Amino acid sequence: MTTSLSCGVSRRILLSTMALLPALIGPLRPVSVLAQTDALPSWNDGSAKASITDFVKRVSTQGDPDFVSPEQRIAVFDNDGTLWCEQPMYVQLAFVLDRVKAMAPLHPEWKDKQPFKAVLEGDMKTVADSGERGLVELAMVTQAAMTTDEFAKIVSEWLATARHPRFNRRYTEIVYQPMLELLAYLGANGFKTFIVSGGGIEFMRPWSEQVYGVPPEQVVGSSIKTKFEMRDGRPTLFRVPEINFVDDGPGKPVGINEHVGRRAIAAFGNSDGDLEMLQWTTMSGGVRLGLIVHHTDAEREYAYDRQSYFGKLDKALDAAALNRWTLVDMKKDWKRVFAFE
Amino acid sequence: MTTSLSCGVSRRILLSTMALLPALIGPLRPVSVLAQTDALPSWNDGSAKASITDFVKRVSTQGDPDFVSPEQRIAVFDNDGTLWCEQPMYVQLAFVLDRVKAMAPLHPEWKDKQPFKAVLEGDMKTVADSGERGLVELAMVTQAAMTTDEFAKIVSEWLATARHPRFNRRYTEIVYQPMLELLAYLGANGFKTFIVSGGGIEFMRPWSEQVYGVPPEQVVGSSIKTKFEMRDGRPTLFRVPEINFVDDGPGKPVGINEHVGRRAIAAFGNSDGDLEMLQWTTMSGGVRLGLIVHHTDAEREYAYDRQSYFGKLDKALDAAALNRWTLVDMKKDWKRVFAFE
Repeated sequence: MTTSLSCGVSRRILLSTMALLPALIGPLRPVSVLAQTDALPSWNDGSAKASITDFVKRVSTQGDPDFVSPEQRIAVFDNDGTLWCEQPMYVQLAFVLDRVKAMAPLHPEWKDKQPFKAVLEGDMKTVADSGERGLVELAMVTQAAMTTDEFAKIVSEWLATARHPRFNRRYTEIVYQPMLELLAYLGANGFKTFIVSGGGIEFMRPWSEQVYGVPPEQVVGSSIKTKFEMRDGRPTLFRVPEINFVDDGPGKPVGINEHVGRRAIAAFGNSDGDLEMLQWTTMSGGVRLGLIVHHTDAEREYAYDRQSYFGKLDKALDAAALNRWTLVDMKKDWKRVFAFE
Repeated sequence: MTTSLSCGVSRRILLSTMALLPALIGPLRPVSVLAQTDALPSWNDGSAKASITDFVKRVSTQGDPDFVSPEQRIAVFDNDGTLWCEQPMYVQLAFVLDRVKAMAPLHPEWKDKQPFKAVLEGDMKTVADSGERGLVELAMVTQAAMTTDEFAKIVSEWLATARHPRFNRRYTEIVYQPMLELLAYLGANGFKTFIVSGGGIEFMRPWSEQVYGVPPEQVVGSSIKTKFEMRDGRPTLFRVPEINFVDDGPGKPVGINEHVGRRAIAAFGNSDGDLEMLQWTTMSGGVRLGLIVHHTDAEREYAYDRQSYFGKLDKALDAAALNRWTLVDMKKDWKRVFAFE
C-alpha cells in the first residue's frame, strides 16, 4: 500500500471489531502458573526473559526496595503485533474488507463507486489510493449504523469462520504463545493487565476474555461515538459514524489515564504507535519495565521494522536503546511463536 | 439558583475533582462482611432492604435459576446524592468556587470581571445568571491548564480541609453509611462495583478507593480533554479546557459501555440524571435490580425530589413505579445516614 494510508487516524479507524467461539480456543487460554515451574516456557533463556522475571520478582516481593503494592501493579499491552499477528494487514482491516463483500448484495451501487468497487475487485492499490477519506468511509459503512449488540455479534460470527491467509488458522489462534504466558505470569503475580490498542475497543471486547484472559473492562481502544436510544421499548446503544477517540501514539497515555486512572508500571508494545505509552509508563520514576517485541522471524512469522506499513517500528526502536527498554528478538528469544506450532 | 443553571451539561461540567487524607476516613471504609451477621446493619428491615438481599441471593447462589456468573455481576452507582450528599450544592461546585477564591490573588482583574466578581462577593444569584457560558468559564479556569497530577493534588488538598457548611465535616465524611455497607455487601458477593457519576472522573479518583473501596479504574465520570506532552523530559498529561464527555443522563449508558464493556445487572441512583442508566440496566432481560435513593429526611439530611435544582428526581420517580425499581425512603429505610451520627 502507499503512504496515503500512513495517517495514524485513518488506518487505526479501520481497526475496530473482534470476537470468537470460546470452545475453539481452549488450548490458548492463560493457565494459572505454579511458582515452582517455569512460568514462561515458550521464552528462551536470555536477557529478555531475565529482564521480565527480575522485574516481576522485585516489584512483587514484600520487603524488596522496589516492592509495589498490588493495586499499583498495572501492566498495559498493545494488541496488534504485540499479542497477535498484524501481517499481512491488521486483522480489523481484513474484517472491514470482508464486511464490504458481505454487504455488497444490498448495495448494487458499490459496483461503480470507489472505494467499494476496488474492494470488491480486490484492487488494494486503489483502496489505498482512496486515502483517509475513502478508508474512513469503508470503516464507517461497515462498522457503524447498528447497535453495539449487533456489532459484537457480527464480529463474533466473522471470527468464527475467517482465516489468516498464510497460516490458515482462525485469527484468534494467531496469538503469540509467549505473550499469553506473560499475561498469565503477570496475573499470577498480582498484576492487573490491560490491553491498550489502536484497534477498535468494541472489536476486541467480544473475545479478549476467552483469548487473553483480559475482561472487557480492561480493554482500551479506539472508538466511534455511541448514542443511547429507546427502540421498541428497549434501551440500546446505537453506533454513530463519527470518530470518538483514537487510541494510538499520544492517544495511548490519554486512553490509559481515562480508563485506568493511574500509570502502569509495565508496558508492552511493538511499534511507533506504542512510543508514548512506553514513555508515559517508564519515564516517571520508580522501577519500570518497558518491552518491545521486535519481529525478526520471517520463517515462523514475519520480519519487519523501520520500513513496514503495518506496525512500523522506527522511532520507538531508537527510543528503546535510549531508555533501556527490553527488546525482544522474536527469532532468538521465543522458543515457540504460536500454540499450534 | 435560577433555571439558567439547569442545563445538564453546564452544571455537570462543574462537577470534576475530589481527594482526601486516607488516615482520616478509617471508620468509613467498607469492611469485609461475614455471611452470618447482618451485612446491612444501617438498613431498617422492610421491602427496600429485602429487595436488595433477595436479589443478591438469587444471582449469587449456584443452582438458582437466576444465578449470574461472577464476571457478569457488575453494579453501577451514581455518586452525588447516591453515595454522598449533594446539598446545598454539588461538592465539586463548592470546590470550583473555593478555587476561584484561592486563585484570585493571581488574578486582580477578577475583581471587576463576571462571573468571577460575583463568586468573590458570594453573590450566587449573579453566578447563576451568568448561565452556561459563565459556569463553563469558571469550571475551566479552575480545573484545566494543569497536568493531571497537579489537579489530583489540588483536589486532595482541598478535601483535606474543606468542610460541609451544615454538618461541619469533611466532605469525605458526608457519605451514606447504608450505601457503604451496600458496596461492601455486593463486593463480598462477587460483584464488581463501578461509580458512574455526572461529576468529574478526575475529581473522584484520588479518593474513591479509600472512601468507597472502588479503585480508580472502576470510576466513570465526566471529563475534559487531556493531551500528552513531554515537559522538561518528563511525560505528562495536560488538562485542556475543552469538554471531552458528559457522563450524565443518556451519557451514563454510553460511559458504562465505554468503560465496562458490558451491561450492569444492578444500578443505583437518585435523580433524573440516572434515568437512562437505570433503564439500560434493568430493561434488557434477566433478573435485575434498579434502586433509587429518595431523599425524604430533612432532619438527618435533606428532603427533595421533583422541584430540586441539584439532584432533581421527577421523571425517574415516575419511571421507578412503572419499572418496579426499589424506592428507598431515606427517613424510613435508613437506621443511620452518616457514620458520625
